[in-house]
Amino acid sequence: MRFGGQTVRNIRMTVSYDGTAYNGFQTQPGDLRTVQDQLEQAIKQLTGEQLKITASGRTDAGVHARGQVFNFITESQIPIERWCMALNARVAEDIVVRDARIVPIDFHSRRAAKRKTYRYTVRCGKNPDVFKRHMEFHHPTPLNIEAMREGLRYLVGEHDFTSYSSVRTAKNSFIRTIYEAKLVCDPFEEELNSFAFHIFLTGNGFLYNMVRIIVGTLLQVGEGKRPSSDIGAILDAKNRGKAGPTAMAHGLMLWEVFYEEEAPSS
Amino acid sequence: MRFGGQTVRNIRMTVSYDGTAYNGFQTQPGDLRTVQDQLEQAIKQLTGEQLKITASGRTDAGVHARGQVFNFITESQIPIERWCMALNARVAEDIVVRDARIVPIDFHSRRAAKRKTYRYTVRCGKNPDVFKRHMEFHHPTPLNIEAMREGLRYLVGEHDFTSYSSVRTAKNSFIRTIYEAKLVCDPFEEELNSFAFHIFLTGNGFLYNMVRIIVGTLLQVGEGKRPSSDIGAILDAKNRGKAGPTAMAHGLMLWEVFYEEEAPSS
Repeated sequence: MRFGGQTVRNIRMTVSYDGTAYNGFQTQPGDLRTVQDQLEQAIKQLTGEQLKITASGRTDAGVHARGQVFNFITESQIPIERWCMALNARVAEDIVVRDARIVPIDFHSRRAAKRKTYRYTVRCGKNPDVFKRHMEFHHPTPLNIEAMREGLRYLVGEHDFTSYSSVRTAKNSFIRTIYEAKLVCDPFEEELNSFAFHIFLTGNGFLYNMVRIIVGTLLQVGEGKRPSSDIGAILDAKNRGKAGPTAMAHGLMLWEVFYEEEAPSS
Repeated sequence: MRFGGQTVRNIRMTVSYDGTAYNGFQTQPGDLRTVQDQLEQAIKQLTGEQLKITASGRTDAGVHARGQVFNFITESQIPIERWCMALNARVAEDIVVRDARIVPIDFHSRRAAKRKTYRYTVRCGKNPDVFKRHMEFHHPTPLNIEAMREGLRYLVGEHDFTSYSSVRTAKNSFIRTIYEAKLVCDPFEEELNSFAFHIFLTGNGFLYNMVRIIVGTLLQVGEGKRPSSDIGAILDAKNRGKAGPTAMAHGLMLWEVFYEEEAPSS
């Protein structure tokens, strides 16, 4: 497309990042370090353009991403196959751009996103795994995994997720659809005397802190403090006060974002 | 055992650590941060004793350990089952003491070690895995895995490892026995378009930089720069100059240390 005498392109990228050292994805007021700033600075270094990227959504401080998606309009004529390496050479090593492709000029990473999958990881056992400490929430006492699985079933379908949303949100609608909610266990690691499990939630959208509040409540189910059926009863209550605490950020990862033409790969 | 009027005990611990932030295991001159210092400071905080711990061996700056073993003699009467948690509360979160047990008073972690296993991990593919970047050496171009496996076979048995040892060493003997040398591939990760492989070496002892020089040479085999048979020819040459470069530290992990009563668990 030609725009203002220049040929412009819309470039869509997939990026992984370790969120440990960042105040979330999105640019913040003040000097807070964010993934978005890193990426925009790298693009500026590469092309000279001071532009704004659009992501599929924000992630909070300490939250990770395996497959965050963003896009931006650029006048740069750098061949598309050179972009990943060029940006990776200009960002910190906790950010890796994995894919770059040209998309229609009206593609918008947030508006076009059809589904997202988040993963939350918990390590059960006396000690954390020191090598995964930034991406696993450590729970030292035993959990009833089957009760948690049972609880997840109440979430599937279209529901009002008011109870599982931060009160700090100002959305018009709290209705979201969860397509899949599953709990997957890694094998027990004998020497570490522990195992990790992952909660995967796939939905058409997620409210602020929604995955973390769901996980915080499910952990209470796993601890035997609540029955599995509470997960459904809390949905019905439409009251944040009925749900459990917000689970810690570092166990959470934006796993994958799906667009129109794509089917979930799991 | 009673010693100077006090009952003393010899405590043996197994510790995991992420070596990224340390100048190796062993105490260094000056203000360099080491794992040993962290552990000794924690023991001092806990017991008031300013003692020296003895480890199975040192690890270099940036090298990790899954199962490093150390021991120390203490007058403290803290029950053995409380030691792990007490020390873990006093060290940085990149160190986790996983096991503590009372051993005979003459047990010495280095002298009593019968076998050690080291693991070296390489990620093959265009990009590193951002979440494992501190523990995988990233190799962006393809490697001939079968040629590397073939090369590993030359190492098994009793050999003079002069060629695979840093010239900065002053050992009486360069003879070591490798009991097992294997290469294990993780599954190909489609979305990351990459896979990791691990080289496990188990032997009765390792010379300074030995694993890293072996890996650096094997990578040249994998790149097609040398035939597999060079791994054996280099052994025969007894000349460090014939081997390849020393592979980077961060891919290396002290995996396990075996003592008399134990059999390797692999």
